[in-house]
Order: sequence, then structure tokens, then C-alpha cells
Amino acid sequence: MQRSPVTAPTLARLIDAFHRLPGIGPKSAQRLAYYILRAPREEAEALAEALLEVKDRTQLCGVCQNITDVDPCAVCSDPNRAAETICVVEEPLDIVAIERTGAHRGRYHVLHGAISPMDGIGPEDLKVRELLARLGDQGVQEVILATNPNLEGEATAGYLSRVIGAMGLRITRLAHGLPVGADVEYADERTLREALTHRVLMDGEPDRYEAR
Amino acid sequence: MQRSPVTAPTLARLIDAFHRLPGIGPKSAQRLAYYILRAPREEAEALAEALLEVKDRTQLCGVCQNITDVDPCAVCSDPNRAAETICVVEEPLDIVAIERTGAHRGRYHVLHGAISPMDGIGPEDLKVRELLARLGDQGVQEVILATNPNLEGEATAGYLSRVIGAMGLRITRLAHGLPVGADVEYADERTLREALTHRVLMDGEPDRYEAR
Repeated sequence: MQRSPVTAPTLARLIDAFHRLPGIGPKSAQRLAYYILRAPREEAEALAEALLEVKDRTQLCGVCQNITDVDPCAVCSDPNRAAETICVVEEPLDIVAIERTGAHRGRYHVLHGAISPMDGIGPEDLKVRELLARLGDQGVQEVILATNPNLEGEATAGYLSRVIGAMGLRITRLAHGLPVGADVEYADERTLREALTHRVLMDGEPDRYEAR
Repeated sequence: MQRSPVTAPTLARLIDAFHRLPGIGPKSAQRLAYYILRAPREEAEALAEALLEVKDRTQLCGVCQNITDVDPCAVCSDPNRAAETICVVEEPLDIVAIERTGAHRGRYHVLHGAISPMDGIGPEDLKVRELLARLGDQGVQEVILATNPNLEGEATAGYLSRVIGAMGLRITRLAHGLPVGADVEYADERTLREALTHRVLMDGEPDRYEAR
């Protein structure tokens, strides 16, 4: 980014650091830096500490692979969350979106991506092994495949459906109703609640299971 | 901000810290936090350090009151910047905007605000005393009043014009051409260049001085 020599180097470095963040343009970066300059020192410190803490203290839950401070995470150690239903998502933010609907009271599993031959991402690059390990011995009865309704997400759901198929579990996916090519994370709550409520059997049968 | 319990507290703190910044909504804050989570540790550290350095190392230039790492600042200590013309602005970002036009080769003075009786801000709350001290003894010949073309900015320009008037200096202001009610900082370069080139005498005479 071209910078005027009248900007102090320290300030220029902060502007650059903000500008490196996704969705922050040069003007926004400048505004944010001058805001920090005028803000109480405590506010700058709080952001600086939060940035480092997130790198130091967070880890993946050994069970569901979601991001957590404690292992196992709050959901996996909550006795009120039904252990017999596991909702499989691509990313942690998908869980946040699904939780907002209030339509899923079971557990989760985060794949941290989707199968994408174009990008050289196969099942072995995702948390698939960890998912299969959970399905054998924890009384799981249903796996909801809540991958994104796009090419990679559908390929992932198809793959998982085949792999899990022999285990005698109910395998469902989110009802189509989500716009194709979109992200689960951005779906409005009503659409997503509908999709959860009317999830359909993975073998394509017209039967519908009502959410518990 | 309402937060789902599935978000790790450490991550929630970072989302909150981002959300506190101006112009960053809840969704953007979430995106930024997850971006940091995946980014190399060096990037999070660079931002954290830049945040603290800006609070620790920056100061006001003892001459022009702009934000700087060294006192006097780069502009005030540059022998190639004409000392006989001082451009008076409300905020440091106004200097960045004026520098982009390339139409001012003199020095600056930052008031850090504008006179606003409604907000209880008078001349004594601005860097006016520091400006007057510069005008006496440094060979200054012209003061360009580049305050914002709104109520507070015009009041400030009027006040400074009266106070400086007796000192026998040329006092100019930016040509009207800037949209009234707007900020200098957001003006496009051509408009701002026109306004600098055709700056007019503060006593309202139609004479125009060409920029040197």
C-alpha cells in the first residue's frame, strides 16, 4: 500500500497490519488505526491480548474437533446434548449458525473442510477418521450431514454416506431449501430451521424424519 | 453481543474486541477472529505489537502537533518543505488527504479538532496557542486555513483569521468547491487540488493566489 511520508512509521505499520485482514480496505485500515490511537490504552491492550490468547490457548476438541479452550469442549461434555445424533459440518462457524436455529440438540463434528479434488483435498485431509471413530461405540444413531450445498459439500456428504452406510446408522442431510452454491453459515435462521426439520434420508427416499 | 455457548471463550473475547472497533459488525468480527485463528502466529503477533507500539511510541510533533515517532516530525525537519506556508488542518488524516494532491509543498499545523460551542470546545481546547507561537518568528508568510467546510470548521477558520489578522500574514482558505458538510479527508483528489490551487483571501476579496 502506497503510504504518504507524513504518516508516522509506527502508525503506518498498524495501518498495514489492519489492511492485511480480510475485508479491510486501505481507508478502513486508516480509520481503525487512528481510532486505536485515540482509544484508551486498555482497549488496544485488550485486542492485542485477545489476538495472542486465541493463538496460545485454543485447540481442537479431541471429540468433535471444534475450536475450544478446554478438551473436551462445552458441547461434548454437556450431558443435556443428545449423544445419539451427530451433526457433521465443514467449519466451526457452521455450528454457530446451526445453534442459532435451536433446531439441533445433539452433538457436532467439524470436518475442517470439504473434499475437493481440484484443490487436492481428499478425505484424509479432513477429520473423517475422527468421525468414524466416534460412530462405533457411543450409542450414535443418526448422522446429519450438514455440509455446504455446493459441489465440494455434496461430494463430501456422498463420500461420508458411502463410508458410514455399512454401520447401520440413520444418515440424513439438510433439506434442500438452502440456495445452491451458498454457505451454511450465511443462511437465515428460518431457512436453516426448515432445512434441519425436514432433513431427508441419504438414500434419496421421500420419507422425512421430524426433528426430535 | 449475544454469543452462542459453542464458541470458545477465548475466541469470543477476540470477536468482542473486533466488534468494539468502529465499522466492524458482529459478522465481520466473527470472520476476522476465525481468520486470525487460521493465520500464521506471526501475523497475529504483528498486529498485536503494532497495536501496543502505536500507544507506546507515537507522540505529537512539538512543532506542528501531527502524530509522529520522532520530534520534530519528518515534515517539520525536511528542509525541502517551504517553512513560509503553513496549512492548518483539524485532524492528522486531513494531512494525508492533502499530501495525496501534491499541491502543498509547505508545512502543516494540526488543531486536533474544531471550535464547537455546542460541544463545549473552544480555542483553548485546540492547538491554537502552538500555532500562534510558530507564526511570530519562523519567516511564515502565509497561513492556509484548511478546516472542514462545515459549521465548526468555518467557525474555526473565522476565529483564526481574526486572531492572526493583526500579524500581517497572508491568510487564505481552501476554495469552496468542496461539498458543504463533508470532511476534507474524504474529498477526491481533483476537487481538493482545485480547492488548494484556487484558495482565496480570507477578507473575501476576489483575488486568487496561484499555488507556488
